[in-house]
Amino acid sequence: MNPMIYFDNAASTQMHEEVIKVITDCMHAIYGNPSSVHEAGRRARVVVEQSRRTIARLLHASPSEIFFTSGGTEASNALLWGCHKDLGRRIFITGRLEHPAVLKTLESLEKIMDVEVHFVRHQPNGHVSLDHLEELLKAHPSAVVSLMHANNEIGNLLPLKNVAALCAQYGALFHSDTVQTIGKFYTDLSKGVLDFAAASAHKFHGPKGVGFMFVKKGHALTPFVTGGGQEREMRAGTENVCGIAGMAKALEMAYLDMESDQKHISSLKQACMALLLEKIPGSAFYGDAAGSSLHTIMNISLPEGKQADMLLPALDIRGICVSSGSACSSGSIKKSAVMQALNTNPERPSIRVSFSRYNTLEEVQHFVQHLSDIHQSS
Amino acid sequence: MNPMIYFDNAASTQMHEEVIKVITDCMHAIYGNPSSVHEAGRRARVVVEQSRRTIARLLHASPSEIFFTSGGTEASNALLWGCHKDLGRRIFITGRLEHPAVLKTLESLEKIMDVEVHFVRHQPNGHVSLDHLEELLKAHPSAVVSLMHANNEIGNLLPLKNVAALCAQYGALFHSDTVQTIGKFYTDLSKGVLDFAAASAHKFHGPKGVGFMFVKKGHALTPFVTGGGQEREMRAGTENVCGIAGMAKALEMAYLDMESDQKHISSLKQACMALLLEKIPGSAFYGDAAGSSLHTIMNISLPEGKQADMLLPALDIRGICVSSGSACSSGSIKKSAVMQALNTNPERPSIRVSFSRYNTLEEVQHFVQHLSDIHQSS
Repeated sequence: MNPMIYFDNAASTQMHEEVIKVITDCMHAIYGNPSSVHEAGRRARVVVEQSRRTIARLLHASPSEIFFTSGGTEASNALLWGCHKDLGRRIFITGRLEHPAVLKTLESLEKIMDVEVHFVRHQPNGHVSLDHLEELLKAHPSAVVSLMHANNEIGNLLPLKNVAALCAQYGALFHSDTVQTIGKFYTDLSKGVLDFAAASAHKFHGPKGVGFMFVKKGHALTPFVTGGGQEREMRAGTENVCGIAGMAKALEMAYLDMESDQKHISSLKQACMALLLEKIPGSAFYGDAAGSSLHTIMNISLPEGKQADMLLPALDIRGICVSSGSACSSGSIKKSAVMQALNTNPERPSIRVSFSRYNTLEEVQHFVQHLSDIHQSS
Repeated sequence: MNPMIYFDNAASTQMHEEVIKVITDCMHAIYGNPSSVHEAGRRARVVVEQSRRTIARLLHASPSEIFFTSGGTEASNALLWGCHKDLGRRIFITGRLEHPAVLKTLESLEKIMDVEVHFVRHQPNGHVSLDHLEELLKAHPSAVVSLMHANNEIGNLLPLKNVAALCAQYGALFHSDTVQTIGKFYTDLSKGVLDFAAASAHKFHGPKGVGFMFVKKGHALTPFVTGGGQEREMRAGTENVCGIAGMAKALEMAYLDMESDQKHISSLKQACMALLLEKIPGSAFYGDAAGSSLHTIMNISLPEGKQADMLLPALDIRGICVSSGSACSSGSIKKSAVMQALNTNPERPSIRVSFSRYNTLEEVQHFVQHLSDIHQSS
């Protein structure tokens, strides 16, 4: 049996050994409730606050701007609801390529509350039309703009600064789902570019079930999950102490090896693209793969032939884990909402490949060879 | 230095060694996203679904009635919001001794939505007045009743079956915050007593940051946290796979030793009460400590003298972790909302002691001796 080739790191990542160690040690040593005022509680509180300081330091934020959640999805829920119920914003501008954490939440807000959602157009390569965004902002200057930093299916990067400048010009607020990019770049949240951001530990070799939101100083939100006064009255529920410690460690490790990881992963993507063009003539890439694109994600557009629902199981049997569309959909293979919004040719199957520091050039070669074999056997 | 005496198990518990082992193994072996359709994803999915089946089996529920959340607080948020937005219920009946997860959520619902909250009266011993509950139900037959199974500060047990019978008689729905009792008793959710329940793993020697909600078959709720289609479209966000596995193991371990733990912990509580009455004349117990009360929780009413904000730090210095009021409040020592609602004498300090399987009679003796010394030194 071949060892598994895991090329689905945009869905979730392997935990870093150091992160597992931190969490295991924490589970043994720390059991108090951080809200308790005795020694056992204080020990837990120290873990939570040290983790907050670590994350804030790495992101150039203030610890008071970081709030722990159960993940990126909860973070975006809390932020978007907060923009409406606490800040009184009722117009939201987003895109059809956004993650369901944003789209479904805005749908929900539209249904339950007095909220209006507008969609910015995309160029054929998947980039947001900044001209159309400006048009929308002119019409709705006090909107909340929610656009992801890197698209989770095609990897396109948003020009954060340009979008932020437009938002600032018109008085709009800017929330970004940064789930795919936190831990992949040096992030500087002190520049005032973002009002709100959402992150998930398991996308950067941390544990599942924990994430955080960034809320720029001055935005007075109230909790989405209500109850106890945890997270300075911003998120109720006993803190996931060991998960939080693991997340901070994961971000530290990501920063430690940032440049070599970027270089390594970028070289895998380049090699994969070149090999695919060579071995499967007529293959192409969705989005702006060769341009402004996240180094960890690529989305292959294959020549007409076998469909994704044939290709993926065939790759799976060969021990290769890739995806077609976001994993956060129903678990069944169907054309993703992103691919639909991009209006891609349904006859050309799409395969998302997403790399991590643990992948190798040899794995890329194996993958392309297998894909080529399967594709040609049709 | 004395080893720590941890008597704050209602706030959080030490993790069972077997649970730590399950989580650590999971962190090494399972890294796929359960929504991914390849081998790595399937392995994660199997962990989640096996855990769901284990929990459902132990609670005599159907696996389709168990939904994983980030904890009991989120569960109660989701359930109460769901009763309003999905089931159209607008009258809620609760009590002033409930946990903030319920009270603050109802407050929020009242503020944001068209919802009305009524409070059932309590008897001086902290038990809910069933007569008043019936009066309220007569006036509001289609209400949602939210009353906790065991009070987290005084330990009083609610007569679930009587409350359920009243709810059924009038057509009300019954939600119970069962955070303090799941894993402490054999629970049978198949009897149709509860419509909804909330639980947190870290209260029964499982990990923090994970819990579940029980939704009786037939109640069609939609998600509170929106986004991906996880948990059969009921709770968006990548599942906390290893936390879920740890929670299932913790519940299994709790059931394995249920009777001996109950017997052991009850004997500690009895011994503690007897010793206190002997060593600190005039001491008493809030709630119905000698009657219908959870074996793990007792709340001591001390004779006038030093206040809790003097006693607790003095105990803490001696390595004894107890609490005054719920840990889920602001982290500062102030008279808890429960004590206020019970209208207790502010001159008589209240100390909550909560035991677990890991406590010993020797610890109880040490605690009472220290408390007596501190109290008499005033």
